[in-house]
Amino acid sequence: MELVERMLKGDRLALAKLITLVENRSPEISNIMARLYPHTGKAHVIGITGAPGVGKSSLVDKIIASLRKKDIKIGVIAVDPSSPFSGGALLGDRIRMQSHATDPGVFIRSMACRGHLGGLAFATQDTALLLDAFGYEIILIETVGVGQSEISIAQAADTTVLVTMPSTGDTIQVMKAGIMEIGDIFVVNKADQEGADKTVVELETMLMLGTQTRDWTPPIVKTIASNGEGIEELWDRIQGHKKFLSQDSRLKERHIAQIKGEIHNIIAEKLEKRIWDGLLNDARFAQLLEKIESRELDPYTAVEALWEALK
Amino acid sequence: MELVERMLKGDRLALAKLITLVENRSPEISNIMARLYPHTGKAHVIGITGAPGVGKSSLVDKIIASLRKKDIKIGVIAVDPSSPFSGGALLGDRIRMQSHATDPGVFIRSMACRGHLGGLAFATQDTALLLDAFGYEIILIETVGVGQSEISIAQAADTTVLVTMPSTGDTIQVMKAGIMEIGDIFVVNKADQEGADKTVVELETMLMLGTQTRDWTPPIVKTIASNGEGIEELWDRIQGHKKFLSQDSRLKERHIAQIKGEIHNIIAEKLEKRIWDGLLNDARFAQLLEKIESRELDPYTAVEALWEALK
Repeated sequence: MELVERMLKGDRLALAKLITLVENRSPEISNIMARLYPHTGKAHVIGITGAPGVGKSSLVDKIIASLRKKDIKIGVIAVDPSSPFSGGALLGDRIRMQSHATDPGVFIRSMACRGHLGGLAFATQDTALLLDAFGYEIILIETVGVGQSEISIAQAADTTVLVTMPSTGDTIQVMKAGIMEIGDIFVVNKADQEGADKTVVELETMLMLGTQTRDWTPPIVKTIASNGEGIEELWDRIQGHKKFLSQDSRLKERHIAQIKGEIHNIIAEKLEKRIWDGLLNDARFAQLLEKIESRELDPYTAVEALWEALK
Repeated sequence: MELVERMLKGDRLALAKLITLVENRSPEISNIMARLYPHTGKAHVIGITGAPGVGKSSLVDKIIASLRKKDIKIGVIAVDPSSPFSGGALLGDRIRMQSHATDPGVFIRSMACRGHLGGLAFATQDTALLLDAFGYEIILIETVGVGQSEISIAQAADTTVLVTMPSTGDTIQVMKAGIMEIGDIFVVNKADQEGADKTVVELETMLMLGTQTRDWTPPIVKTIASNGEGIEELWDRIQGHKKFLSQDSRLKERHIAQIKGEIHNIIAEKLEKRIWDGLLNDARFAQLLEKIESRELDPYTAVEALWEALK
């Protein structure tokens, strides 16, 4: 793997090519990752998530600028949940981040949705490993949305930042989305808008009402990404969480959970390729579908029959 | 399966119990579904989806009221994407729908998140089959959110209604969520709020810009769920889409795609139970995780070894 050797020597083009291989789930991935894996485990991976429109990209932009002043090398994965049907990616927000495009200490990559559920989380996790092996000290994973796939992406992070904004209605809608528990740090962005303090109080209340017993009390930070206010405090809070994780075996436990997720993904992908793809190309499977559609057969009995045949 | 026989005779309690079995992924599901499946395929399944706060539940409430006046029997699955961590469900919105609780022509069921990605979509699809077999002519699946899991739930519907509201910013945020292509009908709810016409124009533009060539042009309907305005027009549009699907082999194609999804889910669940659960209970797997965490081994090589062992 000449590409891997070049990447490990600091070749950004090689890194970009490897990410593309990972995104496209190339069959070479196992060899690539086996070679790279010993070089990983050093970066601090930070997930930035929240509903569309709360200003995550501006926030990430300002975090990059702040870290670069401290001469910290940073990799950014901007996960774009664009349509699984068109495969395209809307890069509007990305344009702002391009102000860092010529800085060798920053690497920004957008990732669009893959064909199947979970595929995006998988590609994101492997890309984070690539950036880690390349030597980026901080890896930011920005995800848009509040669905289950975003939660699974967040679970690949060491520290998860949940971004919200002063709510027009009530914050209950955020809680409904069911992502409160994954937040290590909460941000109320656009804090110059009306209702910021009310939103902070609502978040505090919900965190108190949470049934989970935690050793860590998630701090709530007010930011105004447009002018950079609160970014330094946010960074301090992230460092505080990193320090917290380094106590006892907490970071190791998070890493083990991440590895478990990665292994689950690898197994699922293998099965998907060997079994499902085979079925889709099998004319007898098409006949089976017709029989089920006409209610001659039910799907569960069909799978039992397939299962026996697969053995 | 006495429960199934009772359910087919119109026993609502038996139906409720069967849904619980499906939700908990009981091992009896295969037998239940095999018995019920011949009685399915008659209902029109309608997905109602959109971001939190746009008023989907109020809309569903008004659709139920309207259909009951027409003496149409209706089953509702309210998918609540509550936390995958606490397992709880926030039922605030459900309360409104309880005005129909004593009406035997209506059956409402809330579903909370299951443990793993895709599990919710699976339980929802099977529940829709149960309601179909029971004799509900219309099945509404209400999902909150704009993530991939909501998209996969929507794919189980014959007609998908995407609900939005006059946007505070610009509608690009909706498009960013990447669900434009799954909408058969668009609703701008809260149409008495400022910006409703602007939102309609933005949606029209985005639909025109869409790369997909469609035989069907998704209509855009303005509604005010709070006072029922636009509900009848929405219903007419849904009927129009049903009529469109009945031309040529379109409905059959949608059903085949749904069955394909169901079979994929059944296979994935089987593999999950037989392989993954086995690993999690294996002490050697815990040792393997430790080795990967310390970078003695990489996850891809580990899976290769596991794969050989599984054979």
